[in-house]
Amino acid sequence: MPLSRAANGSPEPGANEELISWRYANPGTLQIDCLGAFISRDPFSEESSSEEDEHISRNTSLDLLALAVKEEYEDGFTDAAKKISLPYHSSNITHISLDIGGTLTKLVYFTKNDDSPQGGKMHFKYYQTENFESEVLRFLQKKLVNKRRIKNREITHILATGGGSCKFQTLMRKTFPKVKIIAKDEMECLITGLDFFITEIPREIYTYDYNQDKIQFLDVPKITTKDDLYPYLLVNIGSGVSMIKVVGPEHDNFERIGGSSLGGGTLWGLLSLLTTAQDYNEMLDMAKRGNNENIDLLVGDIYGTNYNKIGLKSNHIASSFAKVFKKLKNLKRDPKAAPLTISEKLAQFNQEDISRSLLYSVSNNIGQIAYLQAQRYNLKRIYFGGSYILGHKQTIHTLSYAVDFWSKGVMKAYFLRHEGYLGSVGAFLNGPVST
Amino acid sequence: MPLSRAANGSPEPGANEELISWRYANPGTLQIDCLGAFISRDPFSEESSSEEDEHISRNTSLDLLALAVKEEYEDGFTDAAKKISLPYHSSNITHISLDIGGTLTKLVYFTKNDDSPQGGKMHFKYYQTENFESEVLRFLQKKLVNKRRIKNREITHILATGGGSCKFQTLMRKTFPKVKIIAKDEMECLITGLDFFITEIPREIYTYDYNQDKIQFLDVPKITTKDDLYPYLLVNIGSGVSMIKVVGPEHDNFERIGGSSLGGGTLWGLLSLLTTAQDYNEMLDMAKRGNNENIDLLVGDIYGTNYNKIGLKSNHIASSFAKVFKKLKNLKRDPKAAPLTISEKLAQFNQEDISRSLLYSVSNNIGQIAYLQAQRYNLKRIYFGGSYILGHKQTIHTLSYAVDFWSKGVMKAYFLRHEGYLGSVGAFLNGPVST
Repeated sequence: MPLSRAANGSPEPGANEELISWRYANPGTLQIDCLGAFISRDPFSEESSSEEDEHISRNTSLDLLALAVKEEYEDGFTDAAKKISLPYHSSNITHISLDIGGTLTKLVYFTKNDDSPQGGKMHFKYYQTENFESEVLRFLQKKLVNKRRIKNREITHILATGGGSCKFQTLMRKTFPKVKIIAKDEMECLITGLDFFITEIPREIYTYDYNQDKIQFLDVPKITTKDDLYPYLLVNIGSGVSMIKVVGPEHDNFERIGGSSLGGGTLWGLLSLLTTAQDYNEMLDMAKRGNNENIDLLVGDIYGTNYNKIGLKSNHIASSFAKVFKKLKNLKRDPKAAPLTISEKLAQFNQEDISRSLLYSVSNNIGQIAYLQAQRYNLKRIYFGGSYILGHKQTIHTLSYAVDFWSKGVMKAYFLRHEGYLGSVGAFLNGPVST
Repeated sequence: MPLSRAANGSPEPGANEELISWRYANPGTLQIDCLGAFISRDPFSEESSSEEDEHISRNTSLDLLALAVKEEYEDGFTDAAKKISLPYHSSNITHISLDIGGTLTKLVYFTKNDDSPQGGKMHFKYYQTENFESEVLRFLQKKLVNKRRIKNREITHILATGGGSCKFQTLMRKTFPKVKIIAKDEMECLITGLDFFITEIPREIYTYDYNQDKIQFLDVPKITTKDDLYPYLLVNIGSGVSMIKVVGPEHDNFERIGGSSLGGGTLWGLLSLLTTAQDYNEMLDMAKRGNNENIDLLVGDIYGTNYNKIGLKSNHIASSFAKVFKKLKNLKRDPKAAPLTISEKLAQFNQEDISRSLLYSVSNNIGQIAYLQAQRYNLKRIYFGGSYILGHKQTIHTLSYAVDFWSKGVMKAYFLRHEGYLGSVGAFLNGPVST
């Protein structure tokens, strides 16, 4: 698929096909025509915005964006990202893809348009990996494979990527004996997916200006040389964090240079113990309302002022969660009293404040390590993907601020509206040919 | 003080005085003769070890070392480091020093020997900063200042460093109107203290070989050029973490290049909520007995195997604390049941396992950031100081392993027996002249 077609949004078959060799656009395996792809029913699209509708513009706020990330399904399923239209794709797509992570399984499948011989939509859903058998396989069984509920085609392949693709392979083969289960390399899929979103999907990638509390969509880049796209650092935040340096589109042009075990799983685990939140969305809502200054020890709490000599501001977090220890120590001064129970201890603090503190500390830490890894290889662009972010304002603020602060403005943090689906989209696009 | 005297342990006044200019050895302010200094009543000293006593050798285990770190005081105070003898110091020392941190206040003072006109000992104690007024000031008032319990001298100066030195200045002035309170710069004191321990105190600095579970004391280095000592990275882990690059002994040869808010205060805060431990020593004991594999999601848990393509072993921690979320999700499957209380949720897990998991994640994270900062400036030696470590085996193992793993053996992690007292010792040595 030639770049220029998607880049300027108009079909010019054959034009500039020599520009760049896309991993997913290898002519031998290409099954999917991404030409003119766009986010479906998007309030931010140029067609749907007008001058009267000023608040929905290409410069918008994160709060508004959050409303335009999720998709509602007829079956009441809302934990999904917006569909993507592929208006020029006409042939059948006989595969679906799964990215089976440590906590979540992300699913991508395609349906053709009812009313037209051409075009269709990519669908996105996610499930808890713990419920792989009861939910993921059941969904596949009911809707996709056995009953052929996706019109005009039969699923012949399931493309599986992510850590669990190996672990669940036997189970999938047993459940779908007529379907080929093909494992796709995790890193390759993540990068294919990200390259697709960067180069093909308008209003997908955005940056956040924390001074003005505005997001700005990136133009789908007019790519004429490799330098317009590469090199970059992909920071994928799922249960854990992987950092991948990408210097070009070829198979050997990427490397996992680091990571961190402090990721989404850490935040979810701690908050599921320390709060009454039932799921991650509730945790994020709590964090939104909380004040970390009741939990974290700030530079001002220690110094009574800024520590000017080394440029630490008084509201800089000196130690995450450190006020908790101090406060509990103070409460226990009466030696005759019985030790506090865990519920009594927790009652001293606001769940919302605890959520905000932990969200900050995990996000700050990822931002700092991302910066250090990026400067090590002189990478100026950092893309944050994975299901940890979920368009959440404080997370995006913290990551943007950390990259900006540490790099003194030299590096830039980029985010995606389909942040959790890099791997599954990559597997979907790479197609059934084994890599 | 000329280097060679301390380096070879024998007094050669005036020899090689040109070698290196010590911050704390400026002849104009020098009040303390460190010649021949050593850790008092040290089972590891060459005098006290014999061939029969093979287990107490210069190659020893961390478990044995832990027994030889603490000092017992007649007043029952044991949370202190071993005294250091200064056998050649003969004049009065009329100052004491305090390093007032976010959580702990570290105290250094000197007493002359009873039975000899020459020599005396440096003493080390610490208190909760929360109890500054009730404990620190009371101790100073009773034992040191008003009642002149330290023989032959009157305290004329209190040298205060650390974040709280500013905050508590007024209170100290009010309490001790006849004593001069002098604030000393935090970073300078840390480095003076570390340089002192490295160059003057035998059997103070050690490395840990995690393959053989052995520590090895460093020889007090025979310093002939600056390169024998500098450059190095000091990673000071208190409530928060500070990382200081040091390239030489002069005042402008150091820089705070980074840090982390995930430090001791984070661990203490989280464990004081999630366990019944009453203090940090209890938390460390719990961590010793715990198994983090019940709490953390390992690479093997996700992949079912190693992820060989990128060299991740199956026992590598993919996501700290992530099993907690999964386990609690599974427990809540009955939709009719009331949500679990926090105590019921916590009862699903071992406090010891939680402690080990959090100790690992904080330590691993510090080790990784330390490595990234060190490689950025091409520093091969990393010294870990601060009250977080406390000679704890898993902590030292984790930090040593992280530095070794990430740097592929190029960098080396160093630890100290008086790890918590760098700042207070530095202030003590720098003396009352304002810097």
